[in-house]
Amino acid sequence: MLYYADAVAKLIEEFAKLPGIGPKTAQRLAFHIIRGRKEDAYQLARALVNAKEKVRYCSTCFNMTDIDPCHVCKNTNRDNSIICVVEDPRDVVALERTKDFKGLYHVLHGAISPMEGIGPDQLRVKELLNRLQDDIVKEVILATNSSVEGEATAMYLAKLIKPLGIRVTRIAQGIPVGGDIEYADEVTLTRAFAGRVEI
Amino acid sequence: MLYYADAVAKLIEEFAKLPGIGPKTAQRLAFHIIRGRKEDAYQLARALVNAKEKVRYCSTCFNMTDIDPCHVCKNTNRDNSIICVVEDPRDVVALERTKDFKGLYHVLHGAISPMEGIGPDQLRVKELLNRLQDDIVKEVILATNSSVEGEATAMYLAKLIKPLGIRVTRIAQGIPVGGDIEYADEVTLTRAFAGRVEI
Repeated sequence: MLYYADAVAKLIEEFAKLPGIGPKTAQRLAFHIIRGRKEDAYQLARALVNAKEKVRYCSTCFNMTDIDPCHVCKNTNRDNSIICVVEDPRDVVALERTKDFKGLYHVLHGAISPMEGIGPDQLRVKELLNRLQDDIVKEVILATNSSVEGEATAMYLAKLIKPLGIRVTRIAQGIPVGGDIEYADEVTLTRAFAGRVEI
Repeated sequence: MLYYADAVAKLIEEFAKLPGIGPKTAQRLAFHIIRGRKEDAYQLARALVNAKEKVRYCSTCFNMTDIDPCHVCKNTNRDNSIICVVEDPRDVVALERTKDFKGLYHVLHGAISPMEGIGPDQLRVKELLNRLQDDIVKEVILATNSSVEGEATAMYLAKLIKPLGIRVTRIAQGIPVGGDIEYADEVTLTRAFAGRVEI
């Protein structure tokens, strides 16, 4: 870094702070910016500032949004009797892409992980329970990841929500579409068998 | 992108314009920024703007600099009778790290490549020749890459500079330090033999 002009060194340093960007990649990105059009660098700078200024969490579902309540929560065409619980805003995007689900979401912002010191209090669990108080919600779909943490979180939430008289479901586990049985791990195969359906 | 808040989608889009950053990485970077401290995002934005505002090319050697002439060119302790010609500002950084070379540099900003339509006119060749007019320079070291293009550029420059009565040298080719002869390619081995020195 010593041998670069200060402004170049600083840009490399800032790029290198991003996750998965090592010093060589940071250097490549910085040189790309310096070589490139001024407008491109300014657009990225503006997008950064804009994202930090405008993006916040929906006060209802805690998804990322630039309006509050978010587009999904304020859409009266959506079925407010079903809430799909996910770990991350990216999961909402993935589910919305299927265009299948017409209910509302609740983003926990993580999963229970004692190893990382993440308990229910670090997640948006209390806020989820608050949404279930007024008898509108009939079903909660637990769409946390199929990881140990995601499973534990689903089990924990099921135990809390079932006593409220609300239907609690978990998304299916099994062979991914297009996946080979030969390459599926044993746990997935066991789940796929257990979850078999009549055709 | 459809399902993100506009400011998020825009940030992902801008990250994805960077070289080697695909849509998934762009998404990961954008989420990192949105989740992270406001100050971090602003620092990156400022570094981008700053780099574009302050970094220019030295009017003598065409290395990147924030002052003109650059730190190397204006340093009177350096030997102005030797110019080392490189393709890229990164090569200057690599050579400066060795702390061996005390002369000046000249950055061509590329190498001759008919395939990509890069000829001497697209490089800083004319500016190099101008620096050789006043009889101060006694040696030009050609430190272009050992690629086909780098070699072609070195040969081209040698032909232009030798008639001026200036010593022209080329950096040595051979087995990299720590490298196994077993794994060296034939061309490198041939060059290593041809360049053998008395010990």
